[in-house]
Amino acid sequence: MASARQVNIAIIGAGGVGKCFLSQLESLAARRQNKQKLVLTYIATSKKAVYSDSYSPIALDSVVSTLSSSSQAPLALPKLVDYLAASGTKTVLVDNTSSQDIADAYPSFLRRGISIVTPNKKAFSGSYKLWQDIFAAKEEGGALLYHEASCGAGLPVISTIKDLVETGDEVTKIEGVFSGTMSFLFNSFAPTSGSGGGKWSAEVAKAKELGYTEPDPRDDLNGLDVARKLTILARYAGLEVESPTSFPVQSLIPKELEWRRSKAEAAKEGKVVRFVGSIDVASKQVKVGLEKFDLSHPIASLKGSDNIISFYTKRYGSNPLIIQGAGAGGDVTAMGVTSDLLKVLAQL
Amino acid sequence: MASARQVNIAIIGAGGVGKCFLSQLESLAARRQNKQKLVLTYIATSKKAVYSDSYSPIALDSVVSTLSSSSQAPLALPKLVDYLAASGTKTVLVDNTSSQDIADAYPSFLRRGISIVTPNKKAFSGSYKLWQDIFAAKEEGGALLYHEASCGAGLPVISTIKDLVETGDEVTKIEGVFSGTMSFLFNSFAPTSGSGGGKWSAEVAKAKELGYTEPDPRDDLNGLDVARKLTILARYAGLEVESPTSFPVQSLIPKELEWRRSKAEAAKEGKVVRFVGSIDVASKQVKVGLEKFDLSHPIASLKGSDNIISFYTKRYGSNPLIIQGAGAGGDVTAMGVTSDLLKVLAQL
Repeated sequence: MASARQVNIAIIGAGGVGKCFLSQLESLAARRQNKQKLVLTYIATSKKAVYSDSYSPIALDSVVSTLSSSSQAPLALPKLVDYLAASGTKTVLVDNTSSQDIADAYPSFLRRGISIVTPNKKAFSGSYKLWQDIFAAKEEGGALLYHEASCGAGLPVISTIKDLVETGDEVTKIEGVFSGTMSFLFNSFAPTSGSGGGKWSAEVAKAKELGYTEPDPRDDLNGLDVARKLTILARYAGLEVESPTSFPVQSLIPKELEWRRSKAEAAKEGKVVRFVGSIDVASKQVKVGLEKFDLSHPIASLKGSDNIISFYTKRYGSNPLIIQGAGAGGDVTAMGVTSDLLKVLAQL
Repeated sequence: MASARQVNIAIIGAGGVGKCFLSQLESLAARRQNKQKLVLTYIATSKKAVYSDSYSPIALDSVVSTLSSSSQAPLALPKLVDYLAASGTKTVLVDNTSSQDIADAYPSFLRRGISIVTPNKKAFSGSYKLWQDIFAAKEEGGALLYHEASCGAGLPVISTIKDLVETGDEVTKIEGVFSGTMSFLFNSFAPTSGSGGGKWSAEVAKAKELGYTEPDPRDDLNGLDVARKLTILARYAGLEVESPTSFPVQSLIPKELEWRRSKAEAAKEGKVVRFVGSIDVASKQVKVGLEKFDLSHPIASLKGSDNIISFYTKRYGSNPLIIQGAGAGGDVTAMGVTSDLLKVLAQL
């Protein structure tokens, strides 16, 4: 089966991001002239899978229906590692889940030379030991690992901090709005225009209805999602952050009165409240919570579900390098995964 | 001399960006554990060079003084191609000049398998034929080519448009402030605060004094520098732009009365004038010139010599992906070159 001109792809996850990725992969595979042939040899959800002992190519144009009508169960993770490693062909695992179990297994894949691309935050924002294990296993296995979409979806956030650090710049501070959901909620709850902005709980219900929140909005409102993104960036900036719960994170799970007070206080000063994350490298302070901003501040005037991330560095001085745009959504998240896959393919 | 664990580096140019790059290269080479060894085998300015027929390593910690005390003349470009190709070792040419002659020779280097990283805009914004020759030669020679710093210095501009296009997104519009010099001038000439802002010619003289312009400010003011950056981006977005002079470019070479009138007109509407570039892909319109912006618009409130570039795409919808930050300066430009070099090394 081995061929230098072929790369096997294994995919776990076929939800919102997963389906968009499959669509991007299909057109990508069709466009690759004079490049390695991409062969899908395994795909699974948490309940079903498609694969064969002969690593037969799974047709990309019908993969969603093939998967939904399959009667095969997913391989247990240690078996999946063996299955992929035994092919004799270079293999990339695309983890389009948010599963902690799969994240915990990354070292086993990487150590066997299987490269990984993923939007899954769990591997990089879990315990610091897992972070260390992952990068040690990557070196040991000579595998590649990209996870652009774990922070800011398709925005070039992870690649930017890596470029800054690897070229010898020093990141001094990172701050911004890291959650599309929170961005949308605060733009509605405390708009810069002054008018509008209903009750906090009503805005949450509206956001949920529009599909901007997790099925249980508390998963966004407890701040953990933002804390995970900050954990990842802080680690790349050189801080040994132990876990996403090892620094102060303000939860927004309904405390109606408190938020109305914050909003009113900010309005008195001609400001608005926003839910921001920040990393101060020198003082090793990482925090997530409500802050007040002038109406003219870029964070105040953020639109829709946009993220904004400002990198302050030694080279960039007082004016930060800023990345802004949609930080959530199936297509833009899948774009981050697809561009990572292209970076891996260029190196295989 | 050949070794899979060694990559030869050849450098042309040791000016502002060139010197910063040499400093970044020195620390990079020292940090590379378990990676290819980087060996400098050729360095030249327009007048002097250092190299040897045995490709002896040139010490990075003393390269600037070695070069200035050298009595060797630079190799003519065809000879340099032969010299580098004959080493039998993978080689990267770093072109830290803004020379059209060197840009014209890129196809000869690439066809012989020599990879190139550069901040030089000339190769990618010259004739469309040169653009086509370069990419054909790159394929033919199996060489790599990166030029992040040709637009927006170290900001991730070229990588972002390539990622968007390669993952199948459609870029519909690009607009922004593409010149650090122009940004500085307009922030002084027509500040959002209303106060300040002297005569245009006085602001130009001040900017020149502070080192924000080319030695002859007309090289910035004629708009050609911005037109070159737009040419590059428009080509990646799919437009066959013939040259940077094939679309409307407003020159700002002193027409004192005209700019004062533009400024006054904008002020009457509560706006400010800014020098912007835009690409409309559907109508194939590319243009560079003065436009009016509300004080709250991100383009109006740009600080210092910052650039801002907005990518409107099919996936990102009505809210663009925005990149902002210093778009000029030795260290940040060199950072773009160094991060490109790292991308090449990862693939060699």
